[in-house]
Parts: sequence; structure tokens; C-alpha cells
Amino acid sequence: MKKRVAVIGAGPSGLAQLRAFQSAKAKGADIPEVVCFEKQSDWGGLWNYTWRTGLDEHGEPVHCSMYRYLWSNGPKEGLEFADYSFEEHFGKQIGSYPPRAVLFDYIEGRVKKAGVRDWIRFSTTIRMVKYNEAKGNFTVTAHDLEADRMYDEEFDNVIVASGHFSVPNVPEYEGFSKFNGRVLHAHDFRDAREFTGKDLLIMGTSYSAEDVGSQCWKYGAKSITSTYRRAPMGFNWPSNWEEKQGLVRVDENTAYFGDGTSKKIDAIILCTGYKHHFPFLPDDLRLKTANRLATADLYKGVVWVHNPKLFYLGMQDQWFTFNMFDAQAWWVRDAIMGRIAIPTDKKVLLKDVEDRVKHEDEGKDAHDAIHYQGDYVKELIAETDYPSFDVDGACEAFFEWKDHKKKDIMKFRDNAYKSVITGTMAPLHHTPWKDALEDSMESYLRN
Amino acid sequence: MKKRVAVIGAGPSGLAQLRAFQSAKAKGADIPEVVCFEKQSDWGGLWNYTWRTGLDEHGEPVHCSMYRYLWSNGPKEGLEFADYSFEEHFGKQIGSYPPRAVLFDYIEGRVKKAGVRDWIRFSTTIRMVKYNEAKGNFTVTAHDLEADRMYDEEFDNVIVASGHFSVPNVPEYEGFSKFNGRVLHAHDFRDAREFTGKDLLIMGTSYSAEDVGSQCWKYGAKSITSTYRRAPMGFNWPSNWEEKQGLVRVDENTAYFGDGTSKKIDAIILCTGYKHHFPFLPDDLRLKTANRLATADLYKGVVWVHNPKLFYLGMQDQWFTFNMFDAQAWWVRDAIMGRIAIPTDKKVLLKDVEDRVKHEDEGKDAHDAIHYQGDYVKELIAETDYPSFDVDGACEAFFEWKDHKKKDIMKFRDNAYKSVITGTMAPLHHTPWKDALEDSMESYLRN
Repeated sequence: MKKRVAVIGAGPSGLAQLRAFQSAKAKGADIPEVVCFEKQSDWGGLWNYTWRTGLDEHGEPVHCSMYRYLWSNGPKEGLEFADYSFEEHFGKQIGSYPPRAVLFDYIEGRVKKAGVRDWIRFSTTIRMVKYNEAKGNFTVTAHDLEADRMYDEEFDNVIVASGHFSVPNVPEYEGFSKFNGRVLHAHDFRDAREFTGKDLLIMGTSYSAEDVGSQCWKYGAKSITSTYRRAPMGFNWPSNWEEKQGLVRVDENTAYFGDGTSKKIDAIILCTGYKHHFPFLPDDLRLKTANRLATADLYKGVVWVHNPKLFYLGMQDQWFTFNMFDAQAWWVRDAIMGRIAIPTDKKVLLKDVEDRVKHEDEGKDAHDAIHYQGDYVKELIAETDYPSFDVDGACEAFFEWKDHKKKDIMKFRDNAYKSVITGTMAPLHHTPWKDALEDSMESYLRN
Repeated sequence: MKKRVAVIGAGPSGLAQLRAFQSAKAKGADIPEVVCFEKQSDWGGLWNYTWRTGLDEHGEPVHCSMYRYLWSNGPKEGLEFADYSFEEHFGKQIGSYPPRAVLFDYIEGRVKKAGVRDWIRFSTTIRMVKYNEAKGNFTVTAHDLEADRMYDEEFDNVIVASGHFSVPNVPEYEGFSKFNGRVLHAHDFRDAREFTGKDLLIMGTSYSAEDVGSQCWKYGAKSITSTYRRAPMGFNWPSNWEEKQGLVRVDENTAYFGDGTSKKIDAIILCTGYKHHFPFLPDDLRLKTANRLATADLYKGVVWVHNPKLFYLGMQDQWFTFNMFDAQAWWVRDAIMGRIAIPTDKKVLLKDVEDRVKHEDEGKDAHDAIHYQGDYVKELIAETDYPSFDVDGACEAFFEWKDHKKKDIMKFRDNAYKSVITGTMAPLHHTPWKDALEDSMESYLRN
């Protein structure tokens, strides 16, 4: 009897899984029936932009956390697919920090070529997954949002690829309920021009804070005040960007900080991270983990230790992205197809998780973390037929990137790096990022 | 064996249901075990204000559609509880259009007095309800969001009281994805002061459009342009408020209308209504209905015709609100307790629905619609021990209200009406609505 595999989500992780199975099929293997469920009406996950915020046209939470004018915040040389280079897709080498539309096109190019679109049930969200002890399989309750029809289907394996940068973590501070301006999470940020001429408060110190703040600066915010709890981001910010420790409270139009100072502000953007959120998974299947490189409860970073028929993709915090999802997807494919044996002794699975956590904790800094995740990618790739590539070279691109950010946070995207897949250098982009207000694919590819 | 009843939602409908059961118990009846599940951390449903929009602190859709400075948009004399008057709660008669906080206090007052708070499991959302043919009962899958624990429980009856003014209906128009300002649904509108000095486009012609637009006008929007598809609202708008037919498209900063004109705009507020949305109900239990007075598939407006162990409260479009929920809740209580017999012949149930739809369709105008719903309230009340009240008198308050709106849409709240419960006149409020920028309970009750 043929296996049936459910993939939840058709973003970069889910699409990597489809490509992994299709690749095996193309090489003559007998693959399971794969059904991918995607809530949105198109593929691409976070890279599928929408102006919508909050709830979508079907009353479901909007998946998109991206915004207009977003450019990759890391070099594309760190995320290039080993089986589908940028040069193959675009017919030439392109700049190192492509805008969203360019990366969407690239992601889509590979799966269009693979011909897997009809494996996906679009506009279909998963309401519930239950494991059937007696049958040893899963019942997946799907909701076809267009037809407004809910139905159950059984699967031998379930692969959760629904992402973890979509459901915002939204803290409350004193006074938010009386503040007169907009209070939004980065998840709902869409167009920096809404904030032109405004005094902005940005809360947080991670990628969203950096990039949402930078966008607002680029499109003419009057001032940016960003707040940190432990340590400032510490970049060389423009003169109208100030870092402050500890928001204490706000009132109708002013923010008050831990150092006793205050600032009049027009809007508050919470760049306070995202949650691992799986409302469709019961307690025995639901991952609960911190956002870190070594997640809780996942053997090899992908196998649910409490039920190894269930897999998770891309649940780690990420230096590596698309290519790590590929490494995971190829590995999960082979585990499902019996090419890789998952230990049957749960103690072995738990020990693997414990070791990974320990190993990550031994790292001292971002440099170690990048190597740690690079090594993880290498480990998985070595066990499948995913094309080997120079992972250490990709790490080098990350190190250079970090240096470039440190040097000038508003100019780091004006650099170029060498592809570890094709060995060619990216061209320098024709316009400095801060001056490139028009960010279409046509404009970016004009090099 | 004692019956177990699940009530989904602790807003005005769900609380009416708790009060209905508690009232029977207080009179000595043996009532079922009632468990109410409430997603929010407090009761009050839509009346429980939050600054949050989109997804809440647990990653769940925010229920609240209300905003700061909201005053009732209809006279309180049309919604007064027959078993708990405004005078009983506040110790005096109060103005006819109370702000949100005042109505929240009133709703809460009755259930505090009833002592039903410990029947409610707060911060608990329902993931799924399934009917068990063999056992003749329901399995309810609840998710305790604080403990992050999902669990199943069985119930003999389920009462859906989750409302239908919480999940926005959000249409897309050409150009929304390139518009530079904020595009939001009324569901996400929170503070009119965000739009002070702005040129606003308001889409829609129903209560949200009227009231969100009026709020923005009151708090200093530069101009309001509201658009309609079929007919304008037709009120005597202030000079900076214009009604336009048919939005065609927008670009970065301009809206284009069907009459060939255009207007530069800063933000777009979609007052385009709400959806009946029950992601926790499978096809055999899920209500699908237009927002109308005679809903689809509900015998007596409350009994799910396809499985009469399931009930819905408040799923109608509403002239009557709190008191209609009461009439329904008392009736549902008596049906569950066997005091009222639901016909066992499904044809009878379907015929009841058909007749209600036909009867509503025979009405010519809002006047007929108000009487139609008033008659429905009377019909239900006559079959239970809910205190009878002068429903026709409440209808009269609605007619006066409509006249007052027609006369001056920015002054209708400066009127007062007579309570049909206590027979006393409401005082005129001390400050005209348009000048009352401070809207606290303390301020409103100072009469």
C-alpha cells in the first residue's frame, strides 16, 4: 500500500519538501502520494506579499509578515539553492540583496520547473491533526476556504512546514490602551511611507527592529527611537536614530524610558518577535520551543521525538534558510522513504536533542552560531543526495555581511559576495540601497 | 445522569445564557452543569476593549471590534435587560447613549450579581466540536491558552454564542497593494486621533461607516470621503464629509471614483461588514447565513435544524440586541431543560425557518424590520419566564432614534428616551456628543 504524506504549508520549507520528493521521482524512485495544504491562494509563504493585515479574505490570520520595499537582509549567497542557482533562474548573476519580489520569483522558479504545483491544495487551512493509535496514522482535518468545506483525510506521515515568523509575539506596556497613535507589531507593518514625517518608537533589537526602522528612516521618518532591554543594537545609526534602554510606559503621545527621559512619539512599532504557534496540533504532537538553533524535541532538528511519524521543517532560528530547509526536506524525504533509519529507541532521539542543545550552548558568539548551523546543514546533506556545496563558503559570506553591517548599517546592502554554488561574484547593485526607492524586480535586475 | 452544556463565548449572548440558567437555579430548578468557554481573559465579548489588533497575546484573532470614544449608536432604551434595569445598576437613570465603558459596566453588573463568573473558563478557545452519533453527544476540543493545553470534553448540548461582528469581511480593490497609507478594516480601528488632520476614505454605508467616520470627524480628520455601491447614507453630513459612488481603484495616494472624479487620501478604512465565522465547527454543525433578521437553518432563530442539540445565539442582524439575546437564552435554556419541546419532525423545523425568511422578506422598510424583530422577541418571551416588557415601546425608541439621526447625524446622541423597563425618562446628557471628547464612565455618569 502506498504511503500518503501531508505537508502543511507551501512556503520555502514546504516547497523544499515537494521539490525533494519530486527530485527522487525524477530519478526513478517510487515516492509516496504527497498532499500539500496551503492556507494562502498562492505559494511562497512569507514571500507571498499582501497588503492585508490581521485577518484575511477568509477570516483566517494573515500569514505575511513582509512589507513593501523589503530587500533581503542577508546576502543571497547564504541561501542559494544547491540544485537551482540564481544564475540558472535569472540567466545571469544578480546583486546580493534582492528585494522580496526577486526572491519570490527565484523560489517559484524552482518549483515551477519541478512541476509540483498540482500537489498543493491552495486556500486550504488545517484545523486539526490527530494521531490514530490503532491505525498508526494521522487524521488531518482540512478546511477548503473557497468552497467553505471541512473534511478529514488520513495520512501516514505529517510534515509541519507552516513557519514560525508569522504569529506575532505582542507584549503590553503600561499606557498602550490610551496611546493616541497607531500601535502595531512588525507583522502588520506594510508601507514605510505611512510613517513619513513621524516620530517613531521601535521596540526590539533583532532583525525586524533593524530593518523596519531602517525602512522608515529611508522613506523619511522624522526620527526613530528604538528601545532595548539588555543591550543596544549598537550600529552606527543616522543622526535622527537614537537607542534607549527600557520603555517604562507611554501616555497619549509620549514614551517614558528607564533613564528618566521621555520623547513625544506618533506611532509604536513592536519588533518583538514571533511565536511557534500550531493551533491545529494537539498536545501530543505540538512543538513548544524557544526560537533557537537547537530546538526542543526534534531529533536531527526535524523528527518529533514523541512520534517519529511527524516531522517539522525550519523550526530553528535561522542564519541558513532556504538551503537549510532543503537539507532538512531531503533528509525527511529519505526518512519517510525508508532510506534513512530513525532509531526506534526514544532515548537515542532524546539524547540527540540534548547533545544539540548542549553544543549550541557551548558557542560564545554569532560566529560560533553560524558555524554551528553550517555544520548542521553539512551533517544532513551528507546523509542524502542533496547536492553538496561549500557551506563554509556560505558561512564566510555571513561573516562578511556582519562586518559590513557593523561598518555602516545603511550601506551594507551596497556590497556583493561570491556564489558558493556557481563560484561567480555578484555584481554591485546599480544604486545604493538608501537611494533605491523604487524596488521592483525590473529595476533590480537592470544590472 | 446530569446534562452537561457547553456555551461558547462570554459576551452579551453567552452571559445571557449563564444568567438564564442561574435564574432557573435561583428559582429552585435542577439545572445542567454549564461550562462557558471564553477566548479572552475577561467577559463582555466585543464590549471588552483592547488596544490590540490582528492577533492577540496568544496568537489568536483579536475579538474586539470596538474603539476608543465609542458611544452606543442606538438608544439604551432599546437594549435594556428586562430583569436588570439601568436604574438598578447605576442607582439612577442615565443618558441614552452611554459610552462603551458604561455599557460594559452594566453588562457585567448583572452577571456579577448572578454570581456566574466561575462557570467560565477564560483564555480558553474552542478548536473543534464534533458530534458523536453513537453517544448522541458532542466532543468539544478546548485550548487553554494560558497553560497551552488542549483537551477534549463531552457535552450533551452546545450553544454557540461567539458573535458575528468580530471577523471582518475585507474586500480588495485595485491598487490596495500599492497604496502608501494605512488600509484597515473597521475591526482594527482603535483611536480616531490617529487620523487627525488626515483625508480619509471610508468604504461602506452601514453602522461602522457612519460611526467610524463620525468619530474621525469629531476628533479632527481633515476630510471624510465615504463611498457607497447602491445608495448613499444620505445624512446631513458636515461640510468636510462627502459621499461618492463606487470606488474604482486607488494608486499610491489617490482614490478614483465611478463618476470620474478623484481625491487625494491618506488612509482607507473598510467599513465593509463582518462574517459569520466558525472555524471550530465542521460542515454538519456550521451555520452559513447571510446577515439578516431571519437566519438560515435556525428553528425559532436558535435551534440548528440539522441537529437540534446544537443552538446558536444572536446570529441575526440586530435592531434588538441584549434583550433579544436574553429572549433567546431563556428559550434555549427551557428547550435544554425539557420545558419546551422542539418538534422531532425536521420538516416542521425547516418550515419554521422558511416562514421566518418569507415574513422578513415581506417587510418594506426599516420600520417593518424593527417591528418584525420586536415580534420575534415577543414570541420567544411569551414561551418562557423572562420578564415581559413593552417591546412595542422599545420599537418606538428605535423609530425616534432613526428620526433623530435623519435630522442631524452629529447630534442624535443629544436626545433622551423613556425606559420601557422602569418607565422613567433618561436625562439629557450634560455635554453634546460632538464636544464630549473625554468619554470615561465617571464623566458620563456625572448628570
